[in-house]
Amino acid sequence: MSDLIQRFLAGDRRALARLLSHVENRTELGARAIRESFDRTGRAHIVGITGPPGAGKSTLTNALIRELRGRDRRVGVLAIDPSSAITGGATLGDRIRMMENHADEGVYIRSMATRGQMGGLALAATGAIHLLDAYGFDVILVETVGVGQDEVDIAETADTTLLVQVPGLGDSIQTIKAGIMEIADILVVNKADRPDARQLVRDLRNMLLLGETPEGDWKIPIVETVATEGTGIPRLVDQIDAHRAWLEESGRHRGRIERRLAREVVLLARERFDQWITARLHDQAFADARAALLARQVDPGTLADRLLDGVLDPADTTQTRR
Amino acid sequence: MSDLIQRFLAGDRRALARLLSHVENRTELGARAIRESFDRTGRAHIVGITGPPGAGKSTLTNALIRELRGRDRRVGVLAIDPSSAITGGATLGDRIRMMENHADEGVYIRSMATRGQMGGLALAATGAIHLLDAYGFDVILVETVGVGQDEVDIAETADTTLLVQVPGLGDSIQTIKAGIMEIADILVVNKADRPDARQLVRDLRNMLLLGETPEGDWKIPIVETVATEGTGIPRLVDQIDAHRAWLEESGRHRGRIERRLAREVVLLARERFDQWITARLHDQAFADARAALLARQVDPGTLADRLLDGVLDPADTTQTRR
Repeated sequence: MSDLIQRFLAGDRRALARLLSHVENRTELGARAIRESFDRTGRAHIVGITGPPGAGKSTLTNALIRELRGRDRRVGVLAIDPSSAITGGATLGDRIRMMENHADEGVYIRSMATRGQMGGLALAATGAIHLLDAYGFDVILVETVGVGQDEVDIAETADTTLLVQVPGLGDSIQTIKAGIMEIADILVVNKADRPDARQLVRDLRNMLLLGETPEGDWKIPIVETVATEGTGIPRLVDQIDAHRAWLEESGRHRGRIERRLAREVVLLARERFDQWITARLHDQAFADARAALLARQVDPGTLADRLLDGVLDPADTTQTRR
Repeated sequence: MSDLIQRFLAGDRRALARLLSHVENRTELGARAIRESFDRTGRAHIVGITGPPGAGKSTLTNALIRELRGRDRRVGVLAIDPSSAITGGATLGDRIRMMENHADEGVYIRSMATRGQMGGLALAATGAIHLLDAYGFDVILVETVGVGQDEVDIAETADTTLLVQVPGLGDSIQTIKAGIMEIADILVVNKADRPDARQLVRDLRNMLLLGETPEGDWKIPIVETVATEGTGIPRLVDQIDAHRAWLEESGRHRGRIERRLAREVVLLARERFDQWITARLHDQAFADARAALLARQVDPGTLADRLLDGVLDPADTTQTRR
């Protein structure tokens, strides 16, 4: 076992930081770290925090850290920043850190930039969550921006997802609705002391009333907060805990974790497949086929089939089926 | 050959419409339609139009259609709508159609809703573009919302991408910058008659000056428009044509198309792989492995490797390499 992994398992923070970089960069050591610590995972409560830029998510994250520490929980934070990779600007993690100096050993904050490849970020984030979970954090806050596909993917890795809204951002209820129906477990109306907050809460409440909640299902609560002052944060943490309790009592938690792990297996297999198929496509053996594609004599679907010919035979699947 | 494909090849619009649905739903007939008409593709100029909600993209698209028709070009429009799948609301395509009654045979407008699966939308959109191209449209306008991964994927399928901005939307220059560097060939400042438009144009110009354009590279122009009145639209079409001419003269066009087709092959192969791996994961043969995963005795990476064992052997690739 690598020395770095050993130090990580012994609780060394710097080893954690270095292994998180390995997981982000998709190295073999990163994969090994997850493999060798996976039996320690499954204990943390993973809380996704999403919403549009300007909703005050970093401030809210800081307020949540404070409240959770007050309840004696160890908190890991993964801040996923769509812009930092390209602009090199201050990341979400930096903004969280700048607000308060977390010298506290019970808090760990990490930024991750989104990557161009599809699924790459979801795998990096999932891997990082495994390491933070194995390291022993009780709660892992995963902060993302917006409600794009990346965010939906990441929301799927959370047990509980908060969708943060603020009055006056001009997001139509239609857009919010789309986001809610896909991902939100708790709606947070931040900056709730602003005069137009009442209307937003009313609109959201009406919208929730439109969709019937089947008996026994989780009823999405609306929690009003003023994150800069800590207002509403204890109630928010209570609701986060209530959602986790509901997940377990209703038996939904097991199903969610099952789907989540299955999805991760598929994404990891696909990561290997992508490398394989790209190498194969650019292989000398397919030079003529590539030329025919460019000359529009062969279509992409036919070439794809040819590349997979004899590899993903339907017979392969049937064979293992019985 | 299917009757529907024959009618499509003969120029039947209803056959086009039905085959586009097949491509969107990823049916075998859709794949066949592309295969049997692929030798007719490669002639259309594919123009992506992206930008935040509220930038006036639908109005701009309408104005572009009018100008292009005035120049006697046949125009196909693919409007990709992230919300319609979930909310069932009016789609971008409907909004474009509502604005003007395009009884004109030289115009065809089609909406497509985004899908949850990664890559699914990109493949549906690419397939639809092939059919519109084969049908004989000179220009294909592909309208998307936002600058998420879906939009980046779709921008990669365009020859020329317009990024539409408007004053006062509150998008930081930082966000715009990230979007521009990844995808924009032409910057459009719409609603340029608003008082705060001057400042936006100045900010964008300064931002463009910061990044050096290497000699011979395309210099991203800023085109000011008032789409509701048609102001600036002729200049915009001139710039779109200039970009296409630059692509061809500089030799960049061939490289872009090569990358784009290669990417489509990989996505199509991956689509087949996803079905295969999902079936394999849920196969009876792996029931014990799935149980071990849930019990955290096996990690997702190890299970992924086991599923691919003997299928994607590294030896396979080496073998064809020599």
